[in-house]
Amino acid sequence: MNVEPAELPGLAAATSLALLRQHAPLVHCLTNDVVQAFTANTLLAVGAAPAMVIEPREAAQFSAVADALLINIGTLTERRGVSMLAAIEAANQAGTPWVLDPVAVGALTFRTEFALSVLPLKPAAIRANASEILALAGQPALGRGVDSADDSRHALPFARRLAEEYGTLVAVTGRVDFITDGERAWSVADGDIMMTRVTGTGCALSAVVAAFCALPGDRLQHVAAACRVMARAGRLTAPESAGPGSFAVGLLDRLYRLQGEDLQ
Amino acid sequence: MNVEPAELPGLAAATSLALLRQHAPLVHCLTNDVVQAFTANTLLAVGAAPAMVIEPREAAQFSAVADALLINIGTLTERRGVSMLAAIEAANQAGTPWVLDPVAVGALTFRTEFALSVLPLKPAAIRANASEILALAGQPALGRGVDSADDSRHALPFARRLAEEYGTLVAVTGRVDFITDGERAWSVADGDIMMTRVTGTGCALSAVVAAFCALPGDRLQHVAAACRVMARAGRLTAPESAGPGSFAVGLLDRLYRLQGEDLQ
Amino acid sequence: MNVEPAELPGLAAATSLALLRQHAPLVHCLTNDVVQAFTANTLLAVGAAPAMVIEPREAAQFSAVADALLINIGTLTERRGVSMLAAIEAANQAGTPWVLDPVAVGALTFRTEFALSVLPLKPAAIRANASEILALAGQPALGRGVDSADDSRHALPFARRLAEEYGTLVAVTGRVDFITDGERAWSVADGDIMMTRVTGTGCALSAVVAAFCALPGDRLQHVAAACRVMARAGRLTAPESAGPGSFAVGLLDRLYRLQGEDLQ
Repeated sequence: MNVEPAELPGLAAATSLALLRQHAPLVHCLTNDVVQAFTANTLLAVGAAPAMVIEPREAAQFSAVADALLINIGTLTERRGVSMLAAIEAANQAGTPWVLDPVAVGALTFRTEFALSVLPLKPAAIRANASEILALAGQPALGRGVDSADDSRHALPFARRLAEEYGTLVAVTGRVDFITDGERAWSVADGDIMMTRVTGTGCALSAVVAAFCALPGDRLQHVAAACRVMARAGRLTAPESAGPGSFAVGLLDRLYRLQGEDLQ
Repeated sequence: MNVEPAELPGLAAATSLALLRQHAPLVHCLTNDVVQAFTANTLLAVGAAPAMVIEPREAAQFSAVADALLINIGTLTERRGVSMLAAIEAANQAGTPWVLDPVAVGALTFRTEFALSVLPLKPAAIRANASEILALAGQPALGRGVDSADDSRHALPFARRLAEEYGTLVAVTGRVDFITDGERAWSVADGDIMMTRVTGTGCALSAVVAAFCALPGDRLQHVAAACRVMARAGRLTAPESAGPGSFAVGLLDRLYRLQGEDLQ
Repeated sequence: MNVEPAELPGLAAATSLALLRQHAPLVHCLTNDVVQAFTANTLLAVGAAPAMVIEPREAAQFSAVADALLINIGTLTERRGVSMLAAIEAANQAGTPWVLDPVAVGALTFRTEFALSVLPLKPAAIRANASEILALAGQPALGRGVDSADDSRHALPFARRLAEEYGTLVAVTGRVDFITDGERAWSVADGDIMMTRVTGTGCALSAVVAAFCALPGDRLQHVAAACRVMARAGRLTAPESAGPGSFAVGLLDRLYRLQGEDLQ
């Protein structure tokens, strides 16, 4: 358990990315107000299709026909919570995989209670930073706000425990990402610090994780591939950028053009 | 009726664009959550002015003083529907033209009922893709989500019928755009596939259509000119772009710099 | 009183900027729907940290731990007004400075009443254009929408009066910015017209003002420095831009790279 997880092989990531582009999954995003456009553009760039449908009745209707559902609680409201629960229930009935991004869980009471209440509703995956994983696992979190103050390596045992307890996958991301189903685990060590100077890169990654969850085959590999695709695109974009503005633009360009060989 | 509509002359488009920049119409946008910033920036780039005012009382007050009103149902909620109805009523009383963008109509019950309920409220124009036009016309739609699976040419007869029945203009956009008042029709054949890899290009076009509806003169020509302006800007931007990120940025730059001669 | 205020010295602006980057204040933004991503990215670029938390209970909880709070009424709704009042009250109890951006006040009844109702709640600063300052001061406003039709110089005496009456700072921005506490005043004459062709530059400036209000020391200088930082970044970016798309991207890059010597 304490062995450092192996790096996801580039070939596996390339295979998952090719599969994603072949399937072009439609991702129903119930996400926060800040990152909607960037999330949609990230999904389009990587080869998936986004749709934001938020009225409770429509959210339930739509998540039943989408290929995956994203639940991101960054700007959770009572009303949006109702839509999310309706969408999760419909997704579960239809067999649509759904992904939880528990933004800033632990720091704020309302969203913490909400996040804990949906954990037993069988998410296909959870994508979070170390602080958020600690909070979900009932550990004292160090950070405030959305930047992770803890290290993803420190959070890995708690990620494993969460994955096991809820029968889900957990991707804990940071300078190094770890992706685990409780037993198996992959690491992805490719991110760039510039990712933290653009709002919504983590949220967009969660949407990409949702897209990859829609693919047939080894879901743990697919989720790790999603992390690898974003991290590698960031790594390749950073040296070409003059700052966070051109980085965000270049990241979308890079995701669009990313080839299997770029991942190896 | 079955003759292919003629291409809008470049000179006509250039005349409409010059008029738009002279009038700089203020467009009240009740649009979806995903595309607000891109819509506002598109209006500013082309030479119009955006304002998003959403509280029901304010929406009614504002649409009476704006030059045009956009109603886009992409993230319709019950509450936003109330604002939209109030804004439409005030616009109609003040003689402010309003434009309907019936995003994903047909695919979801709540918005479909809403869109059908506002059709008789005298929109100046409807801007939609082929699937959405088919849905408004009571035909079985093929697509799911917001990408048009049908061809705009196939939808043209239904666009004509809608325009006639509701005394409105219909712009059905896709690889080729058709703009009709039921009797007359123009085509615009200038778009670029990259448009579909950036979220909100269709929604932003609807806002631009609303801006052009505020101009004096031949509204059918103006609406066709709006389509031509966006399509041509896209066509000119695509070869200079490294992907959808730089395409979206370049599109705004291009709209800002677009000259009459670029349209011919 | 009628003497033209002196230009903020570059060295003072540079000192404030260095302090900002050292403190990296966390800014709780209750802002409008259109500008959320641009506001967050601007704060990240300049060296602060954004967080948008909107559910009333969470807004109160969060503004007590944030370093500053921004209240922007651009897309005010009744529900959002409740969150704002809860956040202001908690901020005041915790000693967190809060900043008011009274977007389009005067033009619309609901938001005007709201803005006037929060003025006595001790904002640390108000950032507005000339029309909005006139409206807050009970003067007839000329503009409609968010672009300032009046000149900031004309609004300066009313800005002074507001600052005195409410014990706050007022930054009235336009081609020239004036920043006053009622008695003292600075001017910043560095902006670029391109700023008006990108949505949310004024709103983002208000968020930056909020970040600078969190710093220890001379708050009037800090707020003037915030104006100077944005204006200078705009001035340096404009000649390198091909239009408003690349300008917005370049502005973020420039804010990120801005050095003290650039301000002098």
